This record gives sequence, C-alpha cells and structure tokens, in this order.
Amino acid sequence: MEGYELIMKGKRTGVWLIGALGSISTTVITGAVSLRRKLIPPGGMVTSTEAFEGLGLVDTGDLVFGGCDVREGSLVEAARHVLRETSADPRILGEIEEDLREVEQNIRTGTTRNCGEAIERLACFPAAHRHVREEIEGIRECLRHFKSSHSLSELVVVNLASTEPPLALMDCHSDIDSFEAALDRSDVDAVRASTIYAYAAIQEGCPYINFTPSSGALLPAVIQLAERKGVPVMGNDGKTGETLVKSALAPMFVSRNLEVLSWQGFNILGNMDGRVLDHPDNQESKIKTKDRVLSKILGYTPHSRVRIDFVPSLDDQKTAWDFIHFRGFLGAKMSLQFIWQGYDSILAAPLVLDLVRLAEFAKSRGESGLMPHLASYFKAPVGVEEYSLHEQFRMLMKYVKRVKEE
Amino acid sequence: MEGYELIMKGKRTGVWLIGALGSISTTVITGAVSLRRKLIPPGGMVTSTEAFEGLGLVDTGDLVFGGCDVREGSLVEAARHVLRETSADPRILGEIEEDLREVEQNIRTGTTRNCGEAIERLACFPAAHRHVREEIEGIRECLRHFKSSHSLSELVVVNLASTEPPLALMDCHSDIDSFEAALDRSDVDAVRASTIYAYAAIQEGCPYINFTPSSGALLPAVIQLAERKGVPVMGNDGKTGETLVKSALAPMFVSRNLEVLSWQGFNILGNMDGRVLDHPDNQESKIKTKDRVLSKILGYTPHSRVRIDFVPSLDDQKTAWDFIHFRGFLGAKMSLQFIWQGYDSILAAPLVLDLVRLAEFAKSRGESGLMPHLASYFKAPVGVEEYSLHEQFRMLMKYVKRVKEE
Amino acid sequence: MEGYELIMKGKRTGVWLIGALGSISTTVITGAVSLRRKLIPPGGMVTSTEAFEGLGLVDTGDLVFGGCDVREGSLVEAARHVLRETSADPRILGEIEEDLREVEQNIRTGTTRNCGEAIERLACFPAAHRHVREEIEGIRECLRHFKSSHSLSELVVVNLASTEPPLALMDCHSDIDSFEAALDRSDVDAVRASTIYAYAAIQEGCPYINFTPSSGALLPAVIQLAERKGVPVMGNDGKTGETLVKSALAPMFVSRNLEVLSWQGFNILGNMDGRVLDHPDNQESKIKTKDRVLSKILGYTPHSRVRIDFVPSLDDQKTAWDFIHFRGFLGAKMSLQFIWQGYDSILAAPLVLDLVRLAEFAKSRGESGLMPHLASYFKAPVGVEEYSLHEQFRMLMKYVKRVKEE
Amino acid sequence: MEGYELIMKGKRTGVWLIGALGSISTTVITGAVSLRRKLIPPGGMVTSTEAFEGLGLVDTGDLVFGGCDVREGSLVEAARHVLRETSADPRILGEIEEDLREVEQNIRTGTTRNCGEAIERLACFPAAHRHVREEIEGIRECLRHFKSSHSLSELVVVNLASTEPPLALMDCHSDIDSFEAALDRSDVDAVRASTIYAYAAIQEGCPYINFTPSSGALLPAVIQLAERKGVPVMGNDGKTGETLVKSALAPMFVSRNLEVLSWQGFNILGNMDGRVLDHPDNQESKIKTKDRVLSKILGYTPHSRVRIDFVPSLDDQKTAWDFIHFRGFLGAKMSLQFIWQGYDSILAAPLVLDLVRLAEFAKSRGESGLMPHLASYFKAPVGVEEYSLHEQFRMLMKYVKRVKEE
Repeated sequence: MEGYELIMKGKRTGVWLIGALGSISTTVITGAVSLRRKLIPPGGMVTSTEAFEGLGLVDTGDLVFGGCDVREGSLVEAARHVLRETSADPRILGEIEEDLREVEQNIRTGTTRNCGEAIERLACFPAAHRHVREEIEGIRECLRHFKSSHSLSELVVVNLASTEPPLALMDCHSDIDSFEAALDRSDVDAVRASTIYAYAAIQEGCPYINFTPSSGALLPAVIQLAERKGVPVMGNDGKTGETLVKSALAPMFVSRNLEVLSWQGFNILGNMDGRVLDHPDNQESKIKTKDRVLSKILGYTPHSRVRIDFVPSLDDQKTAWDFIHFRGFLGAKMSLQFIWQGYDSILAAPLVLDLVRLAEFAKSRGESGLMPHLASYFKAPVGVEEYSLHEQFRMLMKYVKRVKEE
Repeated sequence: MEGYELIMKGKRTGVWLIGALGSISTTVITGAVSLRRKLIPPGGMVTSTEAFEGLGLVDTGDLVFGGCDVREGSLVEAARHVLRETSADPRILGEIEEDLREVEQNIRTGTTRNCGEAIERLACFPAAHRHVREEIEGIRECLRHFKSSHSLSELVVVNLASTEPPLALMDCHSDIDSFEAALDRSDVDAVRASTIYAYAAIQEGCPYINFTPSSGALLPAVIQLAERKGVPVMGNDGKTGETLVKSALAPMFVSRNLEVLSWQGFNILGNMDGRVLDHPDNQESKIKTKDRVLSKILGYTPHSRVRIDFVPSLDDQKTAWDFIHFRGFLGAKMSLQFIWQGYDSILAAPLVLDLVRLAEFAKSRGESGLMPHLASYFKAPVGVEEYSLHEQFRMLMKYVKRVKEE
Repeated sequence: MEGYELIMKGKRTGVWLIGALGSISTTVITGAVSLRRKLIPPGGMVTSTEAFEGLGLVDTGDLVFGGCDVREGSLVEAARHVLRETSADPRILGEIEEDLREVEQNIRTGTTRNCGEAIERLACFPAAHRHVREEIEGIRECLRHFKSSHSLSELVVVNLASTEPPLALMDCHSDIDSFEAALDRSDVDAVRASTIYAYAAIQEGCPYINFTPSSGALLPAVIQLAERKGVPVMGNDGKTGETLVKSALAPMFVSRNLEVLSWQGFNILGNMDGRVLDHPDNQESKIKTKDRVLSKILGYTPHSRVRIDFVPSLDDQKTAWDFIHFRGFLGAKMSLQFIWQGYDSILAAPLVLDLVRLAEFAKSRGESGLMPHLASYFKAPVGVEEYSLHEQFRMLMKYVKRVKEE
Repeated sequence: MEGYELIMKGKRTGVWLIGALGSISTTVITGAVSLRRKLIPPGGMVTSTEAFEGLGLVDTGDLVFGGCDVREGSLVEAARHVLRETSADPRILGEIEEDLREVEQNIRTGTTRNCGEAIERLACFPAAHRHVREEIEGIRECLRHFKSSHSLSELVVVNLASTEPPLALMDCHSDIDSFEAALDRSDVDAVRASTIYAYAAIQEGCPYINFTPSSGALLPAVIQLAERKGVPVMGNDGKTGETLVKSALAPMFVSRNLEVLSWQGFNILGNMDGRVLDHPDNQESKIKTKDRVLSKILGYTPHSRVRIDFVPSLDDQKTAWDFIHFRGFLGAKMSLQFIWQGYDSILAAPLVLDLVRLAEFAKSRGESGLMPHLASYFKAPVGVEEYSLHEQFRMLMKYVKRVKEE
C-alpha cells in the first residue's frame, strides 16, 4: 500500500460520515473497501454505469473514510452483521478487517445538541453544554486534522445520523448574517446537531450532503453560506425504499388520468433508524418528507397516511406495504398494492457513494450552493419542485451530457 | 335530438368496433353515451385533461357507434353486467337503454377467418369459406353503408376482438404488391380476420387501431398501404394493467442501477378474454407483447415468465401478482411485489376513446401511417423502440405541444 | 301476508338491534327479508348448514326486526348502498323496499350515555341527562311495546352500535347488588350505553348478544343478573375479518413449533365503524380484543401491533395486511403475509343471524348466563380461554351433537 | 467422543437419506450435528416441545447419518451455502466441518431406475441396467453394512430424492405376491427408484418415510409387506409451505360457511427441487398431492390450480402467492391472499428429524404398517382421509397422550 499511497498523494478524497457507526455508514465503508480489493462487483452505484464514464469522477477505491458518532461500537462487528444479514460471502470480512480497523481510528465523538430524547438516549455520554461557537470550532478542527493527516485534497461531509425532530424555521434562519448573530449569542434553540455540522463543513470548504430528513441541516442561511463560500451542498433524505417506488409509480396515474383516492403506506423496520423513528417527534420529520411526494406529482392531495413501526426482528430489512385506491372510467374503484422488501442500508450506501463522487466533482468544477441535478437521490430535494423519479433522473442525465459537451 | 343531429350533420365521427359485443366495446359505448347524457364525470380519459384543451378533438358525446361481432348478444344486458360489477349507479341503465338499443342496430356479423379453434368455438355460425377478396368487399360495404346512413364525416375502426394466434411473417407480408397478389389468389394462410379488417378499413380511408395483440393486423404491407392511402394506423395491444405497471416500474431499476434477476407475472381473470387466452395458441400472442417490455427498458433480459390463468369467478376483475427479484450493492438480493386489481374493460375503454379522438385528429391533419406518439397506449407499439411509460407519455405531450405551436 | 301472520302468531321471534341504521344492521335486515322472499340463496350462515338441521331453530324468514339508533337515516337508502357496493342484483331492492319501510317503523331513538365524543358527534340530538333508572325504564318500555305489538314469543337484543371507549372495571361491577346500588344513585361513570341496554334487556328476559368490543356490556354483575334471570348472553366483538384469519392461522405455528417473532396487522376501512375507530379512545377497545388472540393461542407474546386507519374511499370494504415474521430451524427467519379484502357488514350479518337463532334456542332450552359454545363467533369470547378458531368451532359442533343426543 | 460412543454402543439410531447431498438432507445433517454440539437452540422440531417429554424418543444428537445420491457433491460446501443463505452464524461451519466430512464417508451412489429424464440428467453416471433383484440386493447390502459398521441398533430410511413422475397403479401393485413375481421377472416398468428403496428398506426391517410425492414408494403391495414384516412406514410428500398454510386456512371457510370459488396457487422456487419440478412429468406428481387437500377439507371442489415455476435467483427461498376468492352472505364476493416466503429445506429438515424419531419410536413399540398419527407431516397422508392441519395435529397429540397413559 505504501507505494500506492505515494502515487495518490495529493489527489485523495476524504469522506466524513456523521453517524459513522450506523448501519448505512458501515455499509458504505464495507462496500468501498471491498470494491477497492475487488471482492465484490462494481454494481449498485449509478455512477458506475456507462453514462458516467469519462467524467473523471474520483475512484470509489480511493476514498478515505472518517467521521463521528455519539455511540461507541465496533465497525468490524457492524460489518460482520451486515454481511451476514444480506447473505454476503462471510469470507469477505477476513479480507477487509484490517481496512475497517484503520477507519475506526478516524472516528471521533459526535454531538447530540438539541436532538431530542430518542437520540440523546443513544449517546454514550451526555451532551456537553459548551458555547455553540466552541462546538463548531471543535468540529472544524476535527475536519482539518483529518484532512491534513491523510493528505486529502478534498473532503466531503455526509450526514447519516439518526433523524432529529423537525426544526421550525425562525427569523434568524433566513439569512446568513442573522444566523451568525444567533451563533454568536449561542442560541441553542436555533440549531440542532445537523445545523452545526453543516455550518462547520461549509466553513471548512467541504461539500455537505444531508442524507437524513433532519430539517436543521440545510437552512436558507446555511445554503446562502454555501453559495458564498463556493461549496456545493444537497439534501434532504435519501430516497431508498417506499418513497422511491412511490415516485416511480405516482406518475403512472397521471399519465392515465386515474384519480388516486387514497395512498396508505405502512413501513416496518427493525434497525436503529426504526427505533429512533418510533419516537413521534423524530417520526414527524420523516413522514413530512415522505408525504410531499404525492401531492407534488399528482397535482392534488389524495387521502394519504404513512406509518412507520418498529419491528425489531426485521433488523435492517425494511418491509413496506402500500395500498393505492384509485378511480377510473365510469367511476369504478380499483387498487394497486405493493410490497417492498429491501435492506435499507444496502439501498442507501451506493447512493451515498454516488453523492460523494458527484459532490467532489461539482466542487472541482466550481459549482456552489444547491445541486438540483441530484434531486433523484432525495425524498425532499431542496430547491427542486420536480418529484417524479423519471424526470429527476432525466435531470441527472442532462447534467452529465451538458458537462461532457462543455 | 333531431335538431341536434341536423346541426352536427357532416361533422359526426363514427366508430366501428370489431368485437362490438365484447366487454371492452360495451364499456366504450356505455361510457360514451353516459358522458353524452352527463350521467358520469368526464374523468378517466387522458384527452379530457387540460393539456388537450383547444386542440379541437371530436367530442366523445358526438361519436356514433357500430361494428361487428361473431357472437350474438345483447348490448343492454352486457351494460347491465358492467354497471353492476363495477358498483356503478344501477339507475344509469334506465337512462341509456334506448341509446344502447340504437347502437345494437348497427352491429353486423363478423368474420373468424383463420382465427384458431378458441375463437371459432365462440362464433354463432361457421366461418363462410368465400374468396378472401369477397370477404374484404363485404366488410368494405358494411363500413360504407354505416358511414353514409349516419352521415358520418369520418369513421375510425378499432379492433377489440379476442386475441388470435400469432401469424408468422411471410414473404408476401413484406410489401403491398406481394400482399395484393396473395389476396388475389385467396391465400387464406396469409391472413387472419384482423388482417382482413385492417386492409378493408384502410382501403376505405378509415383510421385503424389494433387494440389487440393479434399480429396479423399491422403487417408491413398493411402499414405501407396506410402510408400510401394517407390513413393513420396504430397498435398493438392496449396497455391496461400489469404491463402498464411494468412499464412504469422497470425504469426505476435502471435509474438506481439495481439488477433485475427475475420478474414473474401471474395474471388471473375471468372474462371472455381470459377464456380465449386459456388456449395456448392465443396466449402465445399476448405473452409475446407483454414480455418484450422488460428487455427493452432494462437493456438486458432477466429471467421472466408471464402466466395468464382463467379464473371464472373473477369475471372482468383482472388480478395480477408480480414478483420482482433484484440485486443491489454488495450483491444483496431484495424484492418488490405488486398486486394489481383492476377491471380490464374499465381500464381499456377510455384508452379506446382517446385513440379514436386522436386518430380522427391525425387524419384531419393529413398524417398517415404509424402514429408513434400514441406509443404509451400500447404494450407493443409498432415502430417504436421506447418502452418506458414515462418516455412514451412524454412523446404524446411533445406531439400535443408541437401541434399547438404550429 | 295476513294469513301468514295469523298462522305464525305466538311463535314469532323478534330481533332488537342497537345501532339499527348502521351498516351491519342494514345487512342483517336486508338479508333476512331477502331470504324470506327467496331472493338470495340461504348460504353464508353456519346455522343453515346440514349439521344444524333438525334442531328446530327459528326460521330466519320469521324474524321480526326493530331497534334503536342515535342517528337518523333511511333503511332503504342504506340497503341500496349495500346492494350496490357488493355488486348484488339491484332489482332486489324493489322487491324488499316495502319490508324495509315496515322495519323502519320499529326503530326508536337510542342513548349515547357516556359513549365518548366520537359517538356523541354522530347522535342527532344531545344525550338527555335523566336518572339512569329512568333511562333503563325507557328502554324496557320500548322492548315490551315491540314485543306485545308484534305478538312476539321471544325477543333477542343485539348490540351493533359503534365501539365505545373501554370502561375500566370498578368495584360496583363485581356483583349485581353493588351494581343495583350504583344504578340507584345514578352513578353515570359506572355505565355506558351498552351497560344500560344489556341490563334492560336481561331484566325483560331478552337474550343479549354483545357483537361490539364495548366492555361496558357484559360486566360481571350483568352476567350474574343473566344467570339469575335465566337469560342467555354472549360477547364480545364479532370475529369477522383479520382476527378470524389470525385465529385460524396462529395455531399453525404452534403445530410446527415455529416461533412467531412479530405479527403486525394494518387494517384500513371507510365505514362508520372506521370513522369511530379513528378516535384513539374507541380504537383502544377494539385493539384490546384483537390483541389477546395471539398470546392465548401461542402461549407467549410476540412483538405485535394492530393498526386501524380510516380510509373513506374503501367504504365497507375492509382491507387488512398482516405481516408475520417467524423463526424456524437453524434460527432462520421467514415470513407469511396475508391480505384480507372483505365487506365487514356482509361478513358480520350472517353471524348475527346465527347468534340470534342460537340464543333463542338456548333460551328455549332453559340455558342461562354465558354461552361458551358460541366462542367461535367472537374476538374475545367472555368466559372462554380457547382462542383457536378450530377448537372453538369444535365446541359448537359438540354442543349441537350433545343437544341432538339428549 | 470415544468414551461417549462406547456408552451409546448398541443404542444408536442410524438415518439413511436417499438424496443425501440435496438441500433438505444437508439441512437435516447440518442441524443435527449443530444440535449435538449445542451450536443452535433446540427449537423448530415439534418433538422437542413439552408434549413429547418423557416419551423416551431417541436424542437428535445421537443420530448417525448416511445415505446415497445420484449426484456427486460436497456436504461441506452444501452446508456453507445453507448457512449463508439463511443468515446463520457463518462460524458454525468451522465447528461442524469435521462431523460433516465423517458423514460424507457414508454416502453411496444411488439409483435412478425409471425416474424420468429430468432426474436422469442430474445423475453423474448412467443408470446400470441390472436385474431389479440385483439392484435391491445392492441397496440391502448398503443398509446392512452401514448398520453393522456403526453398531446401529436401528436404521430409519427417508426418501428425500427429487420427485419422480407418477407411477400408475398396476395389477401387480395390489398385493405383495404379485409384486414379488414382478420383481422376479425384473419388470422395470412396475418400479421406480423409490419403489426399490422402499422394498429394500422394509426387507431389512428399516422404518421407511417417503417425504417426496413420488407415488412409486408406498404402493399397496409395499405397505402390505411392511405390515407383515412389522415395519412402520409413512408418506407422502412433506407438508412444508403453501400446502401447510392451505390446510390451516381452508377449514376457516368451512367454519364460516363461506363458499370458496377459486383457489389459485403460484409457487416460485430456485433450488434443485424447482429445477426438477419444471419438467411437466415430475410436476404432475407434486400438483396431484397438493390439489387433493382442498376438496377433502371443503367437501366440494372449487376452481383451483397450482403452478410451480423455476426461478433460479430464489434458490431455496420458496415464495408462494395464493389467491382465494370466496362468496359470502348476499352472494358478495371477497378475497384472501397470502404470500409465503420460507426456506424449503429449513422447513422440511425438522419434520424429517421428527419423523425419524417417531418412526424409531413406533418400531420400538411394535407398531407396523402405516402411521396415521403422522398425517400432519404430509401433503397426502397415505391411508388418512383427514386433511385439516388442526385435526391432523390433534391426531398426533392423541397418540402421544394414549402412549403416555399406557
């Protein structure tokens, strides 16, 4: 590896994962190091398809991982669990164990500032009540140290932490100056952990991806800061399962002029995400981002409800039943049901890697602020009004085509 | 009505339905006359949405229906059945009974030429073995008579008959001259009933829609004739249920680089269509048009099988279970299942009305030959390589936009 | 009918329905009068099967219906709705309209005493705040009047009203003397409407069936009264849909030693029952009776949750999705899902008719108090520990056999 | 282990598996040796529940495995596959690898006599065309050698081979004398491999379990031989998945007098069993045993069809969708669907172990011929007319009770 590191020096890209010991992060890291060692086929990522060839995206194998978490835990044990649950070849673990231990060295303690009971219960020690500025500086220092000690040319920060309760928009969130003032007076009600991370990342010039529904991350003021600093950012809430299908299916009803009467969605899952979402405050954030999809695509708001229940035995295997009642010609009522059974982290991980590669790429091209061409990756793409998966995917393909033609 | 008929004289459009006593035809006619009498809301048809306003499409209420069938039967009884099965207001029947009886006067005996056992069993008297040219002339005479006796300015012919066994392409099908020669020598193996109808319609200048999977209708020679005669035609096989969902969902796997391993579809239905499809020869046609969709959208051919079983108790309520097995990141296998429960005829009827309106419109604009902008209506759109529902729908919207801008 | 009534005089059985304008009552009455006029086949009731022949149960056609409701409404309109929704022959209505209007004459205003907000909102006028004893006397007077004016030899009272919030057991509920004292002092917190009806019925010697989950009906004191008065009673909560399947399926896991890890049930429905159950207080009663089934059958309590959501477009067509996660040999996890789509009232009505016939029969045989042989009809059979459908059904068959052998 | 073997000498029970390298056998052996080493909990087997305590059944850990197969293959590799697919702890393999290799020493080459193309294709060398008597003697010699070389006090033979095409009953099958004559003249059309194994086992005094649907095994003549020889036998076709659910659910419709209109079952699976069943001849056997269940339980024969499709990507994870259409009160049609997702081998293996323990027990008690108390384990229990799972399970419990009371 020595020689290899030498050659790559100065071009390596880092990935700082908030919630680094969680199920998605584990899968991201396990996948990336397995890809580096060619233990798994390069499938699953959109950026590994033909359309993206020739863009010069950073190699997945060249990513260097670090991050923070509020819990303690072992990446190796978490990887063992992921590999076993998904019936992957158990011999992979032996090959990547050392790589994982190296990454473990790069994981720091995170903050749970104003994150609500459900998340605070997970933290292995109580939230320190320092001045918000101090907390931000701590995180910036972490990022700088990770970057310099690994000679990283670029560092992308991805929020994969548990969902926070919604943060209502306040006056101080509307522009960066008011927001700076709020930070100066350590107004803790105006921020959540996700806000602090986003602010810190952007100040350090790191592209920031909010893969969670936490609304505290990409506040208008924060986006404004990203534009000023020349940093690309995007979110919210990775579109992995039920909502993915929803955004692919809902346009069908439009293109047949079939009126959706009701769309009921029942999600059951058993991972940490499920446990946190079992708390009504945190669930509210999630359901908000899930619910918007329908009315945006259909142009009206059918009767609709999304339920998320914690079912421990399911572990990471999210199961969703959606019942769609619709009305057609002569007023006749008909139905479509779907049952989705997918590993949440397995679905999320390649999206994270895609987003990291595309965010690094955007930064290198001098793009700043929101990246609307990444809308297809998110349940609630900030600044984008298009919710149909197909139109969103077309936006990505158009971006790629345009860049290639430049 | 007298005065009304006078006013409309010279602008009325006729619709000649092959299989006029079948479930779809009944629903088409019941719906159209109910719309004329404002007994049901104008929903269900795509051409009744805002996008199509201002095009000047023929009014659904102004359509005059006629057609042929190989069975005997009562339109009124068939309508009663459709209304009851779909839980429609039973009082509608009283209001439209007279209209239906009028249409019944316009229904002639059809041909079952070379249609296979399953269809011939349905016919109320044996196929006459006349010269093919004679048979064609009989149909043309029917169309001319219907047109003149109802003072129709235009007549659209729609094939809604039961699925025929596939007709293998022969040399004489490749161009119109060889085909005319085959007709001259009454080569009965070279035609099926659907071929004869298509040819007759086009010769009479009537736009022709092949809503069935019968491959005998839009042979290359027949399309060539349509181009020469300035007649628009389109097919094959109306996309109403399982395949509709398939063409909306399959692109999702592409836009996530998820590899579809298997796609199994099980259809159960109990109407006449189901009975005819229970015969392996006729089923073959259907499954061919259903199966193409996947490989065209995915770019590879996963393990796939479509089953259609006859379940009498279901009547017109088609139920389909599709099981989709796919592979994601780390090679993990996941699944999506859907269950579709829809009334086949209720789903098909508004498409037929859309197609009639758009075919009449195309003719009036001087278009001829295939109408690729109608691809979204068909399982196997002739001459179109695009199978994604969303891209097909975009083709229709583009056509509308272009026409409006002209 | 005159002669017929004369012949039957003195042997006719009345049925007093609490919630007489609701969906189940409408179906009970519509079905019974249609059976009398031989408009529908006698199927659907267990008591119409061979096993019950020769017992001398009262004829369904000889039942005379009356009852009370807190809402206003038309039985004829409600019957029209039921017939249309279930795709029944709409011509039935014409034949039974007069019968229905006669029954309408027998429907009185009911009480909503202490029934919770959700039910009180439905009532067409506010609950009168009379002394409880006065209210009871009013109901008894109603029952007596109905009985005498129709020359009924027997009168069975069935509670089909909306679910009340649970009534916690109080000291005064434990024996009839304490309970009488509570009535004397008009302790309104100690009773709900269902308690008042049950007490009044039993005092009048009328068998009482609690088809709802309302726990206020069959309090220990009330059962004691029934025993003393020689009146048979039974409840709670008719087992019609999801729980029926649950009680048939759960024993399978026992007989294979498969460990149920989780059993999640999601019910969606759109009728009045659904609207009332959308209120958390009322839902609590329902879920309590549904949840007990599993632990009783399995012998342990798996992770389990039952959800009931109101989906207006579904009307009476209850749809339930149950996801059962279980563990087998080598610790492997597997799953069984079921989707139940049934008309709640259509499923409930024949059970009500069975129960009426069997309650009248029990009374005629001098049975009093609980009727454990009717356990298979209830989600939470009072006084019965057996929850397996098959064992419960065997109890019924044993009873029939024993009676026949006497 | 030396001392242990010494102690057990003379009391050990052997299990001879026909199809010893198949998926079920692998799971049986893997499970039994894991249980012996206490690597998995003793769950999953019915005989490990409380009801069977004190009967003195042979310990699962004391079973000694051997058998035959027509294919070559490695038990260790097959076990690795099973453990990985079911997400079992991969570390188990290391602990039992040596045990598995020991069992591998006991696996001999099997016969494919008259088994049909699909099975013969699997065999690693062509069927030898010896005299049938010679073939039988070879198998008997195998059984004797296995028994003596491992000092087994008892040996149970279980048929786990792929399904053969049905064997039509012939005159020579009706009694043992005619059958012996057919063997003498080496009438190869009168036997299949399963017949030869059953005959050989019984002649050696070994209880024989036919866990497959192959109808050639338990011919009337063979059962007669078992009765004469004092050998208990039972079959056919282990009830593991869809049919298990069917036999638990169908009685529900009876106990509600709901008329089943149609019951459609679609099975998809990807293991060797699936590949063999893809051949229509072999599928016929399977579907026959599956189909009988409904009419026996319901008392009439609804429209019904069972499909089995080979879907390689599913491997051992059988998925079944059943659609049940039924008619209730007022003639209303409703439906129940279920989706079963289970590992076929994981479900079958504990049944095999149960059957081995109970067959050994029956032999030790001097029982001979069919064992009707084991009906609940089979799709088509020979000599038993009861098909309801619950009644069948009750038969088993009664047997246990009776034996305990003796």
